[in-house]
Amino acid sequence: MSEAIPYKIYLSEDEMPKEWYNVRADMKVKPAPLLNPATHEPMTAEELEGVFCKELVKQELDNDNRYIPIPQEIQDFYKMYRPSPLVRAYCLEKKLDTPAKIYYKFEGNNTSGSHKLNSAIAQAYYAKQQGLKGVTTETGAGQWGTALSMACSYFELDCKVFMVKCSYEQKPFRREVMRTYGASVTPSPSETTEVGKKILAAHPGTSGSLGCAISEAVEVATHSEGYRYVLGSVLNQVLLHQSVIGVETKTAMDKYGIKPDLIIGCAGGGSNLGGLISPFMGEQLRGEADYRFIAVEPASCPSLTRGRYGYDFCDTGMVCPLAKMYTLGSGFIPSANHAGGLRYHGMSSVLSELYDQGLMEARSVGQTAVFEAAEQFARVEGILPAPESSHAIRVAIDEAMKCKETGEEKTILFGLTGTGYFDMVAYEKFHNGEMTDYIPTDEELAAGFAGMPQI
Amino acid sequence: MSEAIPYKIYLSEDEMPKEWYNVRADMKVKPAPLLNPATHEPMTAEELEGVFCKELVKQELDNDNRYIPIPQEIQDFYKMYRPSPLVRAYCLEKKLDTPAKIYYKFEGNNTSGSHKLNSAIAQAYYAKQQGLKGVTTETGAGQWGTALSMACSYFELDCKVFMVKCSYEQKPFRREVMRTYGASVTPSPSETTEVGKKILAAHPGTSGSLGCAISEAVEVATHSEGYRYVLGSVLNQVLLHQSVIGVETKTAMDKYGIKPDLIIGCAGGGSNLGGLISPFMGEQLRGEADYRFIAVEPASCPSLTRGRYGYDFCDTGMVCPLAKMYTLGSGFIPSANHAGGLRYHGMSSVLSELYDQGLMEARSVGQTAVFEAAEQFARVEGILPAPESSHAIRVAIDEAMKCKETGEEKTILFGLTGTGYFDMVAYEKFHNGEMTDYIPTDEELAAGFAGMPQI
Repeated sequence: MSEAIPYKIYLSEDEMPKEWYNVRADMKVKPAPLLNPATHEPMTAEELEGVFCKELVKQELDNDNRYIPIPQEIQDFYKMYRPSPLVRAYCLEKKLDTPAKIYYKFEGNNTSGSHKLNSAIAQAYYAKQQGLKGVTTETGAGQWGTALSMACSYFELDCKVFMVKCSYEQKPFRREVMRTYGASVTPSPSETTEVGKKILAAHPGTSGSLGCAISEAVEVATHSEGYRYVLGSVLNQVLLHQSVIGVETKTAMDKYGIKPDLIIGCAGGGSNLGGLISPFMGEQLRGEADYRFIAVEPASCPSLTRGRYGYDFCDTGMVCPLAKMYTLGSGFIPSANHAGGLRYHGMSSVLSELYDQGLMEARSVGQTAVFEAAEQFARVEGILPAPESSHAIRVAIDEAMKCKETGEEKTILFGLTGTGYFDMVAYEKFHNGEMTDYIPTDEELAAGFAGMPQI
Repeated sequence: MSEAIPYKIYLSEDEMPKEWYNVRADMKVKPAPLLNPATHEPMTAEELEGVFCKELVKQELDNDNRYIPIPQEIQDFYKMYRPSPLVRAYCLEKKLDTPAKIYYKFEGNNTSGSHKLNSAIAQAYYAKQQGLKGVTTETGAGQWGTALSMACSYFELDCKVFMVKCSYEQKPFRREVMRTYGASVTPSPSETTEVGKKILAAHPGTSGSLGCAISEAVEVATHSEGYRYVLGSVLNQVLLHQSVIGVETKTAMDKYGIKPDLIIGCAGGGSNLGGLISPFMGEQLRGEADYRFIAVEPASCPSLTRGRYGYDFCDTGMVCPLAKMYTLGSGFIPSANHAGGLRYHGMSSVLSELYDQGLMEARSVGQTAVFEAAEQFARVEGILPAPESSHAIRVAIDEAMKCKETGEEKTILFGLTGTGYFDMVAYEKFHNGEMTDYIPTDEELAAGFAGMPQI
């Protein structure tokens, strides 16, 4: 059988998913609901609709329906850059001389350079359906902002992006890609919002954070007629849209009779990992399969491996609903030497709950080791990976090397979420031997936890 | 039938080309041979083998065999990133509201970001087969250098890249991608070669040109034990390797019963266009089909539309064999406001001969119009194209708009050679209204022609 497996498995268009997979339907203990930050009561649909699009609120709150139909317009857009290839890493296996069989699902073959487009197009579609003028959002490294600007351009929606100031300055190319798609891009914190002004007054000269940018984007959305806020990770709805990754992967693997033993993904807010594992985790939760799931996070931002599980603020300005998650505290900012994304202080409520129940493992890795894996991968597999994705590569290689020791022929699947085209500054540091690792001290973490609300 | 055509046509691995297509076999008048710059006699295989790998020399001189088998190792490498998709541009058609049917073959889905990898891997393979230690080359914008460094890394060959100095400084990211693949990158002209020293003495502070970088790379190759020089375009062998684009395209089109009326590609040195059209031109030359072929070049570097057809130097240092081509003279350098590639002074001998015989048309376009097309394309097709590729997009859109006027349902095929990820500086200029067009004056062109050898 193995001989017949091609380097790249592409589904045909009629094999592409027509439904997203909602893993919450399979969870016995559901993820905890969002809470109103003032009352600490679960957010109602009506309250959420002030911030998010109606249909997306419905998806956010739906813990029951396993399959959610993908609207035809979104299916059509998906055909522009999907199906993404499921790649058998023959060259990497050979290089590692491992008996393991390694597969990765590559989501970088689109102009946004990552999986983010899967949810961006869905969120833009529902905004358009609702008759909105536009949407607001935040972006850090810029992948989400790029994806959203593409999606909005397709549906002719206005797109206002608040970009973390240090990224805005360090990644002018990302900014220009967004401008190509007609988005307006504002460095955050900015003087254009009340919360931005407040943050600037309290921290003059700050280079910004995701938490600040979220607060600004939410303020603009809730104060502008015909606008809503959209988010690129963490939320249930985003994991739902990203399940297109997992459904495609599972369809392709089933077609060739491949059963993964290990499923590995990097985890920042959790959307790509949540999307990849959804249908597999569903099987697992129904007792139909026996997979191991591993979330990989940076040692410098270790929300699962060293965070606390509880309700926390999603943004710095504390204007968003509270979410129950593994968190480092909304004030936590990774040290300046941290490259790339995966820098959010909290983790998706779905993944947090699965992890808390022992249904998923987590591992943290240092960034020098991550870039070593990235370079090794690039040289044999011909894809220069994003630093984020390289966290998964690191652990996939580690696991394949364990197989080499034990002689086990495990099947390893990992998510390769994007390309590193826009991260060459970090690669340069790595080549020049200037890359450093940082592990926050217990005291630093304690300071972050201290800012959590008492619920 | 049309309804059944998917957005993206991927061949399966067993449908992928096993042979390159050598269009020279179909040409009644063969392209003119390379000449020894000292004797003006045709270069012998033995002479060429001092510069190029043995097997590549054989391919360079082979005007007779229509099909050249692709070695299994190269076929395996191709499977890492090929087949490339043949895309039906449904979204662009809809946006333009044209009855034309538009297809493009997208070669940007690999880390080198362009079609260049198709020849890089072949050239690296033959170098390895010959037992060489490494290869040298030049790169301008960096696409070719990136592709070659990937290919050399795969075969564990040393790779020395001379990068045009202004690009080296303006495109540090490209440099870092090459370093990720283990290549050494030297800004050209440099003090590391005799010809570099000479050029620097004559033009202190020069920012370099492709012609200079070629001279340096050839010098190092011919003076180092176990090294040969490799080139990313212009040569017959490169067009041959790039025919994998055309063969895949034709196989995919034949499978769906699609006959293109127009085949359009951008042309710098000519390799991507030559590769795309090869099997189609073969049919045409054998009287079996009736296609129109259009080469698109920048108005600022118009070798076909305003150049002269004759023997010329391939490099500034005049150390390379002479080639008969449409040329602007080896001293011609496009004005500083020219963005992106397509800046070589001459055109492939194969394409030059086809053009001279009236078998191919040529059109030149201004760069502002090119970026307008690029942005229009990016917004609906979801791929941010390279400036080079956008020359083809410009003419494809122009032709589709003509169809809208006349009501003709023409089928248009164009080559989309790469992504614009590394060209955001040019996009930024365009967004800021700072992009200008430049058309060289007749006097400027005359100065270039004056440097041509008298043959």
